[in-house]
Amino acid sequence: MKKILVLGAGRSATSLIDYLINECNEHHWQMRVGDYSLELAQEKCANHQHVEAFQFDVLNESQRVEEIKKADIVISMLPANFHPIVAEICVDHGVHMISASYVSNEMKALDAKAKEKGVFLLNECGLDPGIDHMSAMKVLDHIRESGHKLTSFESFTGGLLAPATEDDNPWEYKFTWNPRNVVLAGHGIVKFIQEGRYKYIPYQKLFRRTEQVHIPGYGYFEGYANRDSLKYLEVYGLEGISTLYRGTFRRPGFCRTWDIFVQLGATDDTYQMEGVKQMTHREFLNSFLSYNPHDSVELKLAHYLGLELDGSEMHRLRWSGLFDHEMVGLDKGTPAQILEHILKKKWTLKPEDKDMIVMWHKFEYLENDIKKEIHSTLVAIGDDSVHTAMSKTVGLPVGIAAKMVLKGEIKETGVHIPIKKGIYTPILNELEKLGFEMNEKQVC
Amino acid sequence: MKKILVLGAGRSATSLIDYLINECNEHHWQMRVGDYSLELAQEKCANHQHVEAFQFDVLNESQRVEEIKKADIVISMLPANFHPIVAEICVDHGVHMISASYVSNEMKALDAKAKEKGVFLLNECGLDPGIDHMSAMKVLDHIRESGHKLTSFESFTGGLLAPATEDDNPWEYKFTWNPRNVVLAGHGIVKFIQEGRYKYIPYQKLFRRTEQVHIPGYGYFEGYANRDSLKYLEVYGLEGISTLYRGTFRRPGFCRTWDIFVQLGATDDTYQMEGVKQMTHREFLNSFLSYNPHDSVELKLAHYLGLELDGSEMHRLRWSGLFDHEMVGLDKGTPAQILEHILKKKWTLKPEDKDMIVMWHKFEYLENDIKKEIHSTLVAIGDDSVHTAMSKTVGLPVGIAAKMVLKGEIKETGVHIPIKKGIYTPILNELEKLGFEMNEKQVC
Repeated sequence: MKKILVLGAGRSATSLIDYLINECNEHHWQMRVGDYSLELAQEKCANHQHVEAFQFDVLNESQRVEEIKKADIVISMLPANFHPIVAEICVDHGVHMISASYVSNEMKALDAKAKEKGVFLLNECGLDPGIDHMSAMKVLDHIRESGHKLTSFESFTGGLLAPATEDDNPWEYKFTWNPRNVVLAGHGIVKFIQEGRYKYIPYQKLFRRTEQVHIPGYGYFEGYANRDSLKYLEVYGLEGISTLYRGTFRRPGFCRTWDIFVQLGATDDTYQMEGVKQMTHREFLNSFLSYNPHDSVELKLAHYLGLELDGSEMHRLRWSGLFDHEMVGLDKGTPAQILEHILKKKWTLKPEDKDMIVMWHKFEYLENDIKKEIHSTLVAIGDDSVHTAMSKTVGLPVGIAAKMVLKGEIKETGVHIPIKKGIYTPILNELEKLGFEMNEKQVC
Repeated sequence: MKKILVLGAGRSATSLIDYLINECNEHHWQMRVGDYSLELAQEKCANHQHVEAFQFDVLNESQRVEEIKKADIVISMLPANFHPIVAEICVDHGVHMISASYVSNEMKALDAKAKEKGVFLLNECGLDPGIDHMSAMKVLDHIRESGHKLTSFESFTGGLLAPATEDDNPWEYKFTWNPRNVVLAGHGIVKFIQEGRYKYIPYQKLFRRTEQVHIPGYGYFEGYANRDSLKYLEVYGLEGISTLYRGTFRRPGFCRTWDIFVQLGATDDTYQMEGVKQMTHREFLNSFLSYNPHDSVELKLAHYLGLELDGSEMHRLRWSGLFDHEMVGLDKGTPAQILEHILKKKWTLKPEDKDMIVMWHKFEYLENDIKKEIHSTLVAIGDDSVHTAMSKTVGLPVGIAAKMVLKGEIKETGVHIPIKKGIYTPILNELEKLGFEMNEKQVC
């Protein structure tokens, strides 16, 4: 009887565990779900046959080894920095492993040993990274196999609010993923290629260098660039391409307003602020503005950053309570931690809120010297604040990959991401059956 | 016979060595001057009696120990990261040491052992840090000893061009100090206190949050804030002060133009650019601008950053050759390294160029509840591109301190900076005799 070990039962594991419970029932597999919070693990497992919840502490070495060596496959939904620790034990004991996180250097280093031991370590098999790789490679492989010359590839993904949920929220956004990562997003340098030229955008300009995209039926989105698009040259085999750009989607107006936080220095995570215990939202903002006893925080901010007092950017800040005399409610914190805490007060999903995932690729290529273009789009909407589109699109590809491994449908060994046809085709096919279909359209 | 060891004979050691040659003649002391370049060391020592130049490699451990243990005092003008290595040997062998660099944590850690061994380790004894500490403490101690209540302390220092040297140079600036440090200046968070409120300025706004200062006889200067003014609360004993701000002086218009480089990301030192070998100045700028085959680099830049095409900022960039089709002339580099290389072409002192040091402190205090204000100003002008005001104001305080130690006029042990009256008073007095006088003026 095959044994699955799931480590981590947080937000992103909900749909994964649901999916695997069904597969366990069908194939008579067994599954153990471990989380630091036993309650959380139990909640996710309900009282299903073949499935057992347990308290798991990744820092407990003997428990780690004991649990992993009993399993046929491990799915790590732990914070990304723990994956290599888990993977090393997996390799030692001949256990396969899957995660939705980026391949780290430590993970890469396990490749040779994993091959030697016949172990498959699949990474980046969630949404982004994950479905983005698979859905892009499907079209890229198709274009290349048809003998056409790819000239441009742009790709955007965003985790947003579903239209009806937006309410009066002028950001059309709430946290549907790790809030800390949202607040820190974009730090570091952004690199991409446009018409054969290398381009660089520093953090202080990132949220003003957006691209506007219209997706029929879903309206307008704005995208800001992700860190290093250049690394996909090699990963996707795109050497020589003229344009390569990867980005993140938000609703129009979001980035211009987020840029206010960037310009103020309110997303800085490198130092502790003074006097946080007594700080109000308004004083938080004022810490980044020059001293002037006669002007209001609103006026100083508007003047400093060239905003209209009655403009939509000021409205978004007002809606978020940034000008309020409300206490922050933390004892200490970096600007980024304090900003996250303030935003959470308004940006946390209500039970009935629905989220939305939007993924959009644009491929340009030459077919007999004629310019052609394909758009590939995925839009997914969540059921509620627990069964989110985010949880489904991150968890299901992981679950499907795990099933394929246990059924012997993947024979690879070593460290992988899902860019091989034999891996991505069956996963995309099953995702389509589950309602997550990439809409591919030849636009010219 | 007392023995002085000077390590490092670069730009900043010229006036120091000249000063100590005189003192050696007068007191029959001996001096050895070591530099990685024997030629440079010989040039600085000329053929003076009592003075010997030698080839010195700080990475050669046995040479390091041999040289240091023969000396009574070591003056380290090496790059700052080498000071702790030198200091450790000094402590081991009971040799005093002086440098013009900031006290590092490694240096601080030597305090107890230095005291135990009777060794004096004096740091931050150049210009900034150095004369700034001494001249500020002189007035601060005076105000406190008079029983008045200090309310505000602001302090600026700048290394600039002397007025007649400015020529048609619209920046009124050339490199008179480590160019790399000038290009990277301001990275990290800036903290200060204004009217009792903690204020923070991120790098992306630093060069737009300047203060304007007029110094009679020398015109206008603009100052941008230095990193962490808050650490001077403790160092200077200013706890409870309402305003504390330290900054760097430039000529008006400099900062607004430098901000262009900041906004572009051209001062980033964290990644290597692509294709540097074939890059022109103009292409360097264009790497940070969006792609558009129809618009010029000038127009794209002006539009991107809200500049007037015929404004003084664009003029400064044009004067610096940033729009030229000239090759950069490097094989590889980070944006900061490339920018430094381009700027050096115009910002290197010609032999006859004179530099200028400007230091300005503003003290506000209450005398019987009446607001009073003192300004303390130092302006120094260099002789030429070798005997710079920078070299004099950095080197002379170090030299004077060394003389005092050898003459037994300083009895301290352990790790110090020159903030004690017994240290700063004689140094300031001798500087005054040498023509470097702080002009202190009660302005109200």
